[in-house]
Amino acid sequence: MIAILKNGVTPAQTKHLVDWLKAMNIDVHVSEGKEVTILGLIGNTSRVDMELLRSLDIVETVKRVSEPYKQANRKFHPKDTIVQANSIRIGSGYFAMIAGPCSVESEEQIIEVARAVKEGGADILRGGAFKPRTSPYAFQGLKDEGVRLLLEAKKATGMPIITEIMTITALPLFEDVDIIQVGARNMQNFDLLKELGKTKKPILLKRGLANTIEELLMSAEYIMSEGNENIILCERGIRTFETATRNTLDLSAVPVLHELTHLPVVVDPSHATGHSRLVAPMAAAAAACGADGIMIEVHNNPACALCDGAQSITPSQFQSINHQVRKILEAVR
Amino acid sequence: MIAILKNGVTPAQTKHLVDWLKAMNIDVHVSEGKEVTILGLIGNTSRVDMELLRSLDIVETVKRVSEPYKQANRKFHPKDTIVQANSIRIGSGYFAMIAGPCSVESEEQIIEVARAVKEGGADILRGGAFKPRTSPYAFQGLKDEGVRLLLEAKKATGMPIITEIMTITALPLFEDVDIIQVGARNMQNFDLLKELGKTKKPILLKRGLANTIEELLMSAEYIMSEGNENIILCERGIRTFETATRNTLDLSAVPVLHELTHLPVVVDPSHATGHSRLVAPMAAAAAACGADGIMIEVHNNPACALCDGAQSITPSQFQSINHQVRKILEAVR
Amino acid sequence: MIAILKNGVTPAQTKHLVDWLKAMNIDVHVSEGKEVTILGLIGNTSRVDMELLRSLDIVETVKRVSEPYKQANRKFHPKDTIVQANSIRIGSGYFAMIAGPCSVESEEQIIEVARAVKEGGADILRGGAFKPRTSPYAFQGLKDEGVRLLLEAKKATGMPIITEIMTITALPLFEDVDIIQVGARNMQNFDLLKELGKTKKPILLKRGLANTIEELLMSAEYIMSEGNENIILCERGIRTFETATRNTLDLSAVPVLHELTHLPVVVDPSHATGHSRLVAPMAAAAAACGADGIMIEVHNNPACALCDGAQSITPSQFQSINHQVRKILEAVR
Amino acid sequence: MIAILKNGVTPAQTKHLVDWLKAMNIDVHVSEGKEVTILGLIGNTSRVDMELLRSLDIVETVKRVSEPYKQANRKFHPKDTIVQANSIRIGSGYFAMIAGPCSVESEEQIIEVARAVKEGGADILRGGAFKPRTSPYAFQGLKDEGVRLLLEAKKATGMPIITEIMTITALPLFEDVDIIQVGARNMQNFDLLKELGKTKKPILLKRGLANTIEELLMSAEYIMSEGNENIILCERGIRTFETATRNTLDLSAVPVLHELTHLPVVVDPSHATGHSRLVAPMAAAAAACGADGIMIEVHNNPACALCDGAQSITPSQFQSINHQVRKILEAVR
Repeated sequence: MIAILKNGVTPAQTKHLVDWLKAMNIDVHVSEGKEVTILGLIGNTSRVDMELLRSLDIVETVKRVSEPYKQANRKFHPKDTIVQANSIRIGSGYFAMIAGPCSVESEEQIIEVARAVKEGGADILRGGAFKPRTSPYAFQGLKDEGVRLLLEAKKATGMPIITEIMTITALPLFEDVDIIQVGARNMQNFDLLKELGKTKKPILLKRGLANTIEELLMSAEYIMSEGNENIILCERGIRTFETATRNTLDLSAVPVLHELTHLPVVVDPSHATGHSRLVAPMAAAAAACGADGIMIEVHNNPACALCDGAQSITPSQFQSINHQVRKILEAVR
Repeated sequence: MIAILKNGVTPAQTKHLVDWLKAMNIDVHVSEGKEVTILGLIGNTSRVDMELLRSLDIVETVKRVSEPYKQANRKFHPKDTIVQANSIRIGSGYFAMIAGPCSVESEEQIIEVARAVKEGGADILRGGAFKPRTSPYAFQGLKDEGVRLLLEAKKATGMPIITEIMTITALPLFEDVDIIQVGARNMQNFDLLKELGKTKKPILLKRGLANTIEELLMSAEYIMSEGNENIILCERGIRTFETATRNTLDLSAVPVLHELTHLPVVVDPSHATGHSRLVAPMAAAAAACGADGIMIEVHNNPACALCDGAQSITPSQFQSINHQVRKILEAVR
Repeated sequence: MIAILKNGVTPAQTKHLVDWLKAMNIDVHVSEGKEVTILGLIGNTSRVDMELLRSLDIVETVKRVSEPYKQANRKFHPKDTIVQANSIRIGSGYFAMIAGPCSVESEEQIIEVARAVKEGGADILRGGAFKPRTSPYAFQGLKDEGVRLLLEAKKATGMPIITEIMTITALPLFEDVDIIQVGARNMQNFDLLKELGKTKKPILLKRGLANTIEELLMSAEYIMSEGNENIILCERGIRTFETATRNTLDLSAVPVLHELTHLPVVVDPSHATGHSRLVAPMAAAAAACGADGIMIEVHNNPACALCDGAQSITPSQFQSINHQVRKILEAVR
Repeated sequence: MIAILKNGVTPAQTKHLVDWLKAMNIDVHVSEGKEVTILGLIGNTSRVDMELLRSLDIVETVKRVSEPYKQANRKFHPKDTIVQANSIRIGSGYFAMIAGPCSVESEEQIIEVARAVKEGGADILRGGAFKPRTSPYAFQGLKDEGVRLLLEAKKATGMPIITEIMTITALPLFEDVDIIQVGARNMQNFDLLKELGKTKKPILLKRGLANTIEELLMSAEYIMSEGNENIILCERGIRTFETATRNTLDLSAVPVLHELTHLPVVVDPSHATGHSRLVAPMAAAAAACGADGIMIEVHNNPACALCDGAQSITPSQFQSINHQVRKILEAVR
């Protein structure tokens, strides 16, 4: 960590600051230039509060030289992590297509969709049992029963399943779930992250709506620091001023994450855009820029043509998206 | 709720949609104009998924006529809510100054700051025991011990205390805490909100960094829908592109919230700006535009002049801010 | 246009509003439902000030049923527009690769880069002569001389050229320029747009950093309303809270624009990301989601290995990007 | 300027970079620490392209030690600038209330409003003659005739006038205008700024919707670098994800600007919020946090009660806002 002191700082002030840092077991290398004095902080600087340091009257600016995440950092783990969910691998060239309905609604529905997406090329079945909803009056999912039905679908199709956890007290229900999803709203629910770090379960960690890429990695670090290294990161759109799409899918995050971390990166075009017509082009773009997987909402309601326009797509649309994605994967390999 | 159908929708399609809505116990009033067909949805529309409806191929747009929050809505509860925390009232003309350190560090520290801010005009003592930190390696607060020390400070000064909860399992520790704070990162931790709704404790609910005013009210509604109406809303800055301040304090939210809800609204200029020099002007502005309280970080470290530039201010600065705020309150009354 | 009136509006108030609208030659269809009264405004509503209407005390909300852009609107011009710049076509299946240096620096440089990118697969040569710079002290481009050198490069290679205009008084210099670029900062310089509308030159209109897709189309409409239909839209990143990239490339804008308008859409991954390492993956993604062209910064400075990390890439990197982009175009066709 | 090199940079690479910098007449002070090598750049670094430097492969980060604006910088001009517009002063304790209609509509209207706001306490008359409108089909102002009518109102009331310029070719029309306004959309129309810098007219420079405080100061620097130091900065809301207000008024910008620059700062609550009901509280807040002036839209249409809800307020509301603002100014002095 580097701290640049302001013009006109006195030697006494500099000494005061250096002593304070040394009291925290930080070694300090002082470099006095013509224009400014620069402190090089050496040692375990992850404990130094950068914001506090930066806010001191005599400090012009503070800059980390090393990233604040260690276990998620590619510098220290150059090799790609491969996350294994039952029979399916994700990362380092292993690409996974994840598909299924927004919510589990009934045994019939989930098994029908599961079979349809498997036939359409899906590797993993998604489905919501616990649903985070902005309104307390909205449908909050089938909960325990939803998880049970997903497990039925897993039995029926052999596909690994992924579903979202909202509170740590529900963890026992997830014993046979293959990948536990942490939703965007819980990306910084640190107590939940720490508890999931104590399991060995694969975790799909969604980026929060207003969270930076570095914050996403710090949340992964929360899980990893407790011992669980099976983490899949997921870009699902950030909140901006644009209203033509529900959120703004930040696809640049895919190559940026690949540079910074060894963890696999998945993209969710359904939630990001909120429009079924945009799922196919954005899935294609995600594949082209290096995503290790794509997660798509697929419904199966032939009786209700009304739903065609929603963010969910039909099984036959999914099949064609999967087909195109695989072609692009070949083209970019 | 109003749904405007697209140009060229056939009567059969309209009927299909109307039947689907009626199956959800929604009464529908169809109005066919020259340009468009409009459906008026009557009944308990809070269960209708607006996003789904809007995404249907034949629907141009959907508009709520009534807000999705009921108990927090001023339309149904025109009278201001007054939240009582021990001896202190907030709302409807009762103004509360909340002050104290970012973190509880020791018994000596918290009692010293508590006495100083009380003398400086504070009504309520704040102090962090459980600290949400972006990094798993950063100091996470004194936890249980922090709460205990706050209770000592309460005993020593008679001031009610407020401190943050991060997980529902910690709730028993908060029995003698006067106001429980829900932090910005947990604004949409719906399971936590629901559990807090089952208590009768005053809750200070902070706006999330990327959450709209309506989402803040929906989170209040989560608490209220479980029976707890003692809610104080808190504006603490939103995330924007500007980097001169840590976040952008959205003071317009204060009069907007006063229009939409009967709940009291408090402003936190310390966290919003991240700079001690900005606390005084933004506290003054908050008072001028109608805040029911202001929450300020105050430290007490006369030995360490280094901290002067942080977002925390000294007790004597606090005293002068409090003095100015009270003068402005008189001016705007 | 639809105006929904508030609950409890009196017939006299409604009549007052209807009379006011009729005085503007707007025909009004009144529909009184149980819950709300809805006005359907028929006629040339593009003159009605939506914000004023929405802000009236008796109005709950106002909604356009038709988009405010007419000539740029795909509804009225379903067929894709093809813009022709000299020998090169863009749009409706014609894909153009645009490449060249950020700034024109010398005759030798621009001709060398021009030849290199042509060999690498570029269709059009880009190069900045007038450079909009945040600082008045920064290099502002070679100006007139820069345009002259670009024309030399055009002569030497046969490639059409594109360069940016910053003020209308410079227009005579652009007579032999094939495509005139309007930069992000000038997207809402309406006087400039109107003057460009009086020419027949192809215009590449960049989206402003904080402008919505609809605003981009309204700026295109400014040009078209004066008679010039040769417009290429360009997505080049929007300003968000994320700092890992210079801006956030909003690739969803590509399929959204293709739905809303018949104009071709080009993507600029160099300026959007600000990092040369991100140009290849984002160019691939742009091709995959349907862009009609890609604009890439290429430098040619073998003597200065230092520049390798900039947002500009080398000619040989460009060649390999072009190769991959063409493979993806085949895969998605 | 400070450049921090990456770990593992070779001496040869460092020398290469230092030579390159020296070739630009930059003196370089090299400091090799245990962890990193730091370059201190001394001399006229305003010509060094920070983004290019930062993007070099061997550079970890670059940090300006001095701000890129000189003439607008309080460090070099500690004394507050006072801008004089005819008889009215703004800045350094001189507070100005600016009021008037959005658009000049007729001689009768502008003179009536001018008299009303003067009586209500306004110091300066505002009114739009050239109106930047998102749609080419919307009313674009009375233009030349609008300026002429404003001058009539100036004659009738003795108040200085302010009105917006959109293109430099219109400058001759502004000869008798007291303050020329540069709108938010033109904040980075650098050619316009430079031309205005050649006049001696007071310029009110509005912050762009997506522009940082530093960019606002750089645009002021454009004007000042040509010789015109009569600049008033104006905060008028930034674009964020929140939709309850038209923009998010960033009042923290007021004290931040007072720290960074000696130029006066004015706040426009009408355009920022877009709602007349929010003008009074946000004007009060602006006064409380140190604004040197407030600009408010006032209409005068007693015949048309319909307009009550717009962002414009009535003359009697203006009078009461002015009264409250003056009381707050006394309270904070």
